[in-house]
Amino acid sequence: MKKILIDCDPGIDDALALALAHGSPELEVVGVTTVSGNVALAHTTDNALRLCDYYGMDVPVARGAGRPLVRAPRAAGHVHGATGLGDVVLPAAKSELSTQHAVDFIIDTLAAAPGEISLTAIGPLTNIALALRKEPRIAEWARQFVIMGGSYTRGNTTPAAEFNIHSDPEAAAVAFGAPWRTVMIGLDLTHQARATAAVRERFGDLGRLGSELVTPCLDFYGQHISYRDEGPAIHDACAIAYVIDPGLFETVPARVDVETQGRFTAGMTVTDFRAPAEEHNAEVATTLDVQRFWSLVADAFRAVARGLSG
Amino acid sequence: MKKILIDCDPGIDDALALALAHGSPELEVVGVTTVSGNVALAHTTDNALRLCDYYGMDVPVARGAGRPLVRAPRAAGHVHGATGLGDVVLPAAKSELSTQHAVDFIIDTLAAAPGEISLTAIGPLTNIALALRKEPRIAEWARQFVIMGGSYTRGNTTPAAEFNIHSDPEAAAVAFGAPWRTVMIGLDLTHQARATAAVRERFGDLGRLGSELVTPCLDFYGQHISYRDEGPAIHDACAIAYVIDPGLFETVPARVDVETQGRFTAGMTVTDFRAPAEEHNAEVATTLDVQRFWSLVADAFRAVARGLSG
Amino acid sequence: MKKILIDCDPGIDDALALALAHGSPELEVVGVTTVSGNVALAHTTDNALRLCDYYGMDVPVARGAGRPLVRAPRAAGHVHGATGLGDVVLPAAKSELSTQHAVDFIIDTLAAAPGEISLTAIGPLTNIALALRKEPRIAEWARQFVIMGGSYTRGNTTPAAEFNIHSDPEAAAVAFGAPWRTVMIGLDLTHQARATAAVRERFGDLGRLGSELVTPCLDFYGQHISYRDEGPAIHDACAIAYVIDPGLFETVPARVDVETQGRFTAGMTVTDFRAPAEEHNAEVATTLDVQRFWSLVADAFRAVARGLSG
Amino acid sequence: MKKILIDCDPGIDDALALALAHGSPELEVVGVTTVSGNVALAHTTDNALRLCDYYGMDVPVARGAGRPLVRAPRAAGHVHGATGLGDVVLPAAKSELSTQHAVDFIIDTLAAAPGEISLTAIGPLTNIALALRKEPRIAEWARQFVIMGGSYTRGNTTPAAEFNIHSDPEAAAVAFGAPWRTVMIGLDLTHQARATAAVRERFGDLGRLGSELVTPCLDFYGQHISYRDEGPAIHDACAIAYVIDPGLFETVPARVDVETQGRFTAGMTVTDFRAPAEEHNAEVATTLDVQRFWSLVADAFRAVARGLSG
Repeated sequence: MKKILIDCDPGIDDALALALAHGSPELEVVGVTTVSGNVALAHTTDNALRLCDYYGMDVPVARGAGRPLVRAPRAAGHVHGATGLGDVVLPAAKSELSTQHAVDFIIDTLAAAPGEISLTAIGPLTNIALALRKEPRIAEWARQFVIMGGSYTRGNTTPAAEFNIHSDPEAAAVAFGAPWRTVMIGLDLTHQARATAAVRERFGDLGRLGSELVTPCLDFYGQHISYRDEGPAIHDACAIAYVIDPGLFETVPARVDVETQGRFTAGMTVTDFRAPAEEHNAEVATTLDVQRFWSLVADAFRAVARGLSG
Repeated sequence: MKKILIDCDPGIDDALALALAHGSPELEVVGVTTVSGNVALAHTTDNALRLCDYYGMDVPVARGAGRPLVRAPRAAGHVHGATGLGDVVLPAAKSELSTQHAVDFIIDTLAAAPGEISLTAIGPLTNIALALRKEPRIAEWARQFVIMGGSYTRGNTTPAAEFNIHSDPEAAAVAFGAPWRTVMIGLDLTHQARATAAVRERFGDLGRLGSELVTPCLDFYGQHISYRDEGPAIHDACAIAYVIDPGLFETVPARVDVETQGRFTAGMTVTDFRAPAEEHNAEVATTLDVQRFWSLVADAFRAVARGLSG
Repeated sequence: MKKILIDCDPGIDDALALALAHGSPELEVVGVTTVSGNVALAHTTDNALRLCDYYGMDVPVARGAGRPLVRAPRAAGHVHGATGLGDVVLPAAKSELSTQHAVDFIIDTLAAAPGEISLTAIGPLTNIALALRKEPRIAEWARQFVIMGGSYTRGNTTPAAEFNIHSDPEAAAVAFGAPWRTVMIGLDLTHQARATAAVRERFGDLGRLGSELVTPCLDFYGQHISYRDEGPAIHDACAIAYVIDPGLFETVPARVDVETQGRFTAGMTVTDFRAPAEEHNAEVATTLDVQRFWSLVADAFRAVARGLSG
Repeated sequence: MKKILIDCDPGIDDALALALAHGSPELEVVGVTTVSGNVALAHTTDNALRLCDYYGMDVPVARGAGRPLVRAPRAAGHVHGATGLGDVVLPAAKSELSTQHAVDFIIDTLAAAPGEISLTAIGPLTNIALALRKEPRIAEWARQFVIMGGSYTRGNTTPAAEFNIHSDPEAAAVAFGAPWRTVMIGLDLTHQARATAAVRERFGDLGRLGSELVTPCLDFYGQHISYRDEGPAIHDACAIAYVIDPGLFETVPARVDVETQGRFTAGMTVTDFRAPAEEHNAEVATTLDVQRFWSLVADAFRAVARGLSG
């Protein structure tokens, strides 16, 4: 079992990513931390608690940063609906939040098991940056650091920048500057993970999980993003899949610098594949084994679905 | 006949672009202006004169700006060789430079034939910016403004920026800010125009033009750029081809802003295809009809070759 | 007689500066060029012509740039009134504009008398930058280059930037980057040149010049700038005075860099008095001999006044 | 008694500031937190511990951030000597560090006494920024927030920026952006607090405190800063003095924005005294009652000296 700590901002694709993590026989989720991003912190935190309860995940949930490291907060728009889960309304959570702040939860959890835990961030990187500045050794303690964020061609929030990085460029600069090799699962990769009609057919036997969550999530997401006919990209799940099985991914080492100064380019992950090896600070995912990815997801979702009915 | 004024920095692909322009039965070249870029101004100007003499082009050549609008000059590297034409050595020019500065030549030439001349810039945009600031009406007088420069995904000089725009971002910002609709023939387009082995076979019957110029140019260019097996992209010729026959190109209207402030992104052409129509300032070329492009080039080169032997 | 070419944007204090130049027995004004700044180019040009006619200055007036080198134009506010001369209305000009553009007038005039002419710029530096880029040798040909602009402590348009530099930071960066040693007469100096009540008493015998121009100019200027009880600073006249008699000024060599990238500091003249001598690019005026300055001005104004009545 | 929490980076003037705080009958020091700044964190923390022991201060000392919020660390130069206290070598500390991180110490201490504690930062603002992002309510809980840092005219590390703010501009931007009104004791104020020969005579009766610490500190500081004949400015002590007796200071409300984007101006505290009142975020100290300030300092130092010999 691989241990994973998930820093997230649910968010529709975060919800699906959590299901993938929980349903995967390869992973043990050791904690979930929340950050402001797709929606405000109060919503992402409440959503994380509700999702964990709903999926039957018995893991600590710790609340983190409510605004970016330096910049003023920005509205995340309507991609995820007012509360962050589209039209889905889950039961109120019975579990309680961790009394720890996410930053301390991340530090203490990694400190307690050096080299064992994959730190995976699928929202803005504010908590990660704060944790790195409070305790730089987490960069040694993490088994690996995987993010959903960035791109090496074009962005989605602006022509140059992807949403998670654009939401907190300075935090991303801190994260990419730490002495680990960030695994960047960016838009170039996640746009290969589209929930097409064919994919969605494979989710036909999910019972309540399908009707209550997966289907309405995909419906909502698909409506609010202009993905033409290809179905929405399930960004965040790709980062979880990388932790489960990096063999599904081709990655290329590169130097990634986060633009924090540009007028039109703030939050861009400037990716130099030709940088000398000693300057490499990232493994950038370029190609996804799409069929195996969806098999992984479908299997995990089915496992979660069985847990629900149990 | 379409009139074209070519602002250039020869440069290997500029040399081929000039041949295309001169050999095309559709175009009348009304002048050539030079700018610092691929190599220093003294070389680009000398090359322009030699190329015009060699091709038998009887057109004015006017020297322009020797350094970028605001920034310090940068070395252009070894892509084009020390003098700008790789290993090619053409006879010294017999023609003389225009007594006018390129900026004045551009202004006066456009003023004399409003609506008739396609202004085509295939180097850094310094002369264009200076001309626009000295005489803003050139934006009305030009029939159209076509550039080789920029990209909407990745750059070549930096991960974010293409060489011509990166060489003078402020000048590019001025040019894209003028009240014409810039036709941007960027890297995404020009990387479709690769001089593959198959393409080069079509240049087999060019006689002296082939052995003295086209072949050594392509050989040198191909060696010094990492184009793997696909052959070098003949960037500048694409802009000329657009003036000859825009039907070879798919273009998409967009808002293009040039980043002048970034730490890692200066000179990036930030291209927003989702901008509202009233903010569009560019037609961005996305797709080239590759077969017809090379036919156009081959025909033009043959015409130039016949002129040489005449 | 020292030859001076004045690039200006009249403007109330430009009007007074032109009077000082014309009335000084030390100076021969060889030309006046205009630029957009205090008010739009049409007004600064018309004002320059009217002022020259009114003062009896028989010099060429050449129109220059209508907007900054790179940035969008900004409104200059109401410091100088709608047309630029406060409430003063001078007779329409009989003289005609030079047929040359200011940029060419500057280049040709300096080229014709290398080492003889003090180039003095008392508006935004757009024309200077365009001239430097078109003909870099003007930096050798000018006897000296003196500007009213910048500051080494605080600005007036923003907390960091003075109006002339703030209006066109990129042009200022070009001007300070040229291989001459810019004499910077900035706010720290010009705020010593206040038209106090005592000073204004010395202008009591100017006849028509007083009643028609000097008095209403100072009244208007004084009203619209918050100078408390000290009277308005007559910025532009200080730069002319420097050309007449540099002995009135203490200057300190320094490195001046113009900020073009800041969010809150664009247009600031960042002045490093501790820079090594080989990096010095400016002589920064720090102290004015106030009494002798006003004597110079009063004498010159009287000479102009006599010319008017003649 | 006014409670004060001091975030510092000793540092020579920090050492004197701590003595002032400890010796003042008006203040109760509730804690000392350390940050990287004048020298590296290991030194500032060790110095803080040694100074507290030496002065007989029985207060918690908590270690904070070892590098700036976003940027790479910079060397602080030789102003404070290799270990931060010039030539002074104090006995090794017997007290132990708090087990809490400075960020948590600040949060918990302020939370335990809302409205009672003056938070005073005399080093780079990294800890303050991290604390604000982890617990935004500290902005309500602090009685007031006083810094030594910034300037409204010129800097000392660069022509535009003061050392503390320049060391971590992003942290300073966070601190000035919080919903408290920062009291800025900047260079314009602290340059009035010079340890002249006359001032130093008043320190003649300090016994061991004089010979072991105050005199060698001032000697070292005076040598390494170019203060001509006026003696070194004791920057940090001014912030403590403000907490003791704000009546010694004239302050002016203003809008202060920290430049984080400039090429030459990063870390500048851009101070707009003309901003509308609703945009004011700072009280900027402009004038010091120099005589009373030094009396305050001398009295406090004598009280500390008596404690040493006790």
